[in-house]
Amino acid sequence: MPQPTFERSEYERRIEQTKERMHEEELDALVATDPSNMNYLTGYDGWSFYVPQAVILTVDRDEPVWVGRGMDANGARATTQLSDESIRAYSDDHVHSPHDLHPMDYVADVLAELDVGDGRVGLEMDAYYFTAKSYTRLQKNLPEATFEDATLLVNWVRVIKSDRELEYMQEAARISEEAMVAGLDAVEEGVPEYEAARAIYDALIRGTEDYGGDYPSIVPLMPSGDHTGTPHLTWTDREFEEGDPVIIELSGCRHRYHSPLARTTFVGDPPAAMEERMEIVVEGLNAALDAAEPGVTCEQVEKAWRDVISTYDIEKEDRIGYSMGLGYPPDWGEHTASLRPGDETVLKENMTFHMIPGLWFDDFGVELSETFRVTSDGAETLAEFPRKLFST
Amino acid sequence: MPQPTFERSEYERRIEQTKERMHEEELDALVATDPSNMNYLTGYDGWSFYVPQAVILTVDRDEPVWVGRGMDANGARATTQLSDESIRAYSDDHVHSPHDLHPMDYVADVLAELDVGDGRVGLEMDAYYFTAKSYTRLQKNLPEATFEDATLLVNWVRVIKSDRELEYMQEAARISEEAMVAGLDAVEEGVPEYEAARAIYDALIRGTEDYGGDYPSIVPLMPSGDHTGTPHLTWTDREFEEGDPVIIELSGCRHRYHSPLARTTFVGDPPAAMEERMEIVVEGLNAALDAAEPGVTCEQVEKAWRDVISTYDIEKEDRIGYSMGLGYPPDWGEHTASLRPGDETVLKENMTFHMIPGLWFDDFGVELSETFRVTSDGAETLAEFPRKLFST
Repeated sequence: MPQPTFERSEYERRIEQTKERMHEEELDALVATDPSNMNYLTGYDGWSFYVPQAVILTVDRDEPVWVGRGMDANGARATTQLSDESIRAYSDDHVHSPHDLHPMDYVADVLAELDVGDGRVGLEMDAYYFTAKSYTRLQKNLPEATFEDATLLVNWVRVIKSDRELEYMQEAARISEEAMVAGLDAVEEGVPEYEAARAIYDALIRGTEDYGGDYPSIVPLMPSGDHTGTPHLTWTDREFEEGDPVIIELSGCRHRYHSPLARTTFVGDPPAAMEERMEIVVEGLNAALDAAEPGVTCEQVEKAWRDVISTYDIEKEDRIGYSMGLGYPPDWGEHTASLRPGDETVLKENMTFHMIPGLWFDDFGVELSETFRVTSDGAETLAEFPRKLFST
Repeated sequence: MPQPTFERSEYERRIEQTKERMHEEELDALVATDPSNMNYLTGYDGWSFYVPQAVILTVDRDEPVWVGRGMDANGARATTQLSDESIRAYSDDHVHSPHDLHPMDYVADVLAELDVGDGRVGLEMDAYYFTAKSYTRLQKNLPEATFEDATLLVNWVRVIKSDRELEYMQEAARISEEAMVAGLDAVEEGVPEYEAARAIYDALIRGTEDYGGDYPSIVPLMPSGDHTGTPHLTWTDREFEEGDPVIIELSGCRHRYHSPLARTTFVGDPPAAMEERMEIVVEGLNAALDAAEPGVTCEQVEKAWRDVISTYDIEKEDRIGYSMGLGYPPDWGEHTASLRPGDETVLKENMTFHMIPGLWFDDFGVELSETFRVTSDGAETLAEFPRKLFST
């Protein structure tokens, strides 16, 4: 058997910290449905989040209970250290059922068996894959329960990373560097976008000499040409043309941990205006990185960026970064702290953020990002990659 | 500009058919939040489904309304044929907001403006990305509205494919064939699983000489060794060993249309028992394909499979297939018709299914799948690939 992704003691610490928060919220139980939170609490890892599943924590029970589809119970046995009695599976007639049967009916049964069917139960109301229907089925099955919104309860525990988690993020950063080199090399006049995507994927999964890469939670994005103002379009058959700006955003992944990285390149000789904008982005990003240290708030970090760009008479509305690490599609963000005005989260050592400032104008946009860790007295980026505008 | 993915007339037909179903359900409006349904109704395509977004249809308005995040409005302009007044975007302070602000508050405002805030509004209650919170925010903002569950309303329109859709699925099938060859070639004793994943991805995105490949909605799955009974585990650093059974399930993708394919291989000389089980799977699959034709029900197709395996004293509980085509992560299935007992959906020409029967035992499992189209008088598979057990 390979080494477990994390020691049992690490899961125990995570569960303990989660239970402390449950105690503060006076919850008898927590139903974690976000695949990242399920993984965080138990190690469960599989592409099964297209059907409802959950990890249930109760105050009275040491071990969490995994609930999922019958054919995925073996996957829970293979990827978690849970005892057999803590792995509960529903039958396949619950899946996309033409009958009046839903996987959450089974989850409700398990909650009742765990003696919390009439308790205060925390639900991740705004988590991916916890649908409106999942909620109404729990309500219908457990009329005596009191449901509370516990959407980010586990996510806030995840904010500070352990040494092992940081190790995986460092490994992901090495992959991100390789993949960015591959992507920048692949972008050429006349080359179709998918060829650049292919080169990036090749590096993302090949990994390094010592380890391979996992699938990232977000596919490589590379809006180009007119589309640099459309940050979430994916690659097509279109060929890169002389004069195209191309933004590459990607992340290596190890054991579901990410270290995203974005750079901008230009097909041909970039116009002076674009070089200038990139210089502003780099100056602003450097200022924000310099500002990041324990005790400083998220909004203060953002302000350092904004102070720089405002000297160039530029205003930008979007946030410039967010806490991240562990993730499943569709996102590697944690949805907790954001680098933006109004976010008063205080930085602590071993928090990790993806800082991704960009400047978009009517003609084109430039973007450059770094993933950084808050150190004992500052911040350090996980990847080492030149901060500049690239060109073919 | 490249050729649009579909002609305007195709979107008009889809909207008309959706409105007919809305009429049957006496709905004034439909809020489609499933990214596949948003794409189906408007063409919208982007990796933006990690934030709430919607396409709204009302009975009174010809054109649907796209609602999404500010930075994705340009993506809507680039990928849809909607007029500017039908593209509505919320500001970034709605995203993972520390304030009491949610994207669905904005969707509620748009519904009110469209004069259906007190009407009968269909919601995709069990669709991916329509969270419990999204639902309660709509309820809170529109206390006069009557919400109805319209989860599969658009999905059922999607069940019968147009010629253009079938063309894309055929293109996806060509990519699936290439990727399966690459995957089977890569599996060797001593090769790490990620190297096989890398070879598969390379083929998936390289595509054919004429076109590249899109990202599939499900990553290539290849449970191996002890893990063939864990169909949804993804690749690791583990090296293939002599004696490993390996199941490869993958799909090429074109314009978000899929054509999945699964085969089983063996590292070394496969045991006779495994060959025998694969022969049973192939015999059962062939019988089910022979049974498929317009007028036959889904459960009758499944019964043809079950009749074959029961002659070998084997019983299997899971469904053996499902309607599919257009998709975004985490799934390429439509969640409509399934090939299983109790599903009385009648097959019609140009329905498309992924038939994926398998036989799992305590020691190992075998699996083999085909994507097929219902023709005027039978069924034809989209891919052409040998139906047998492979070995290294």
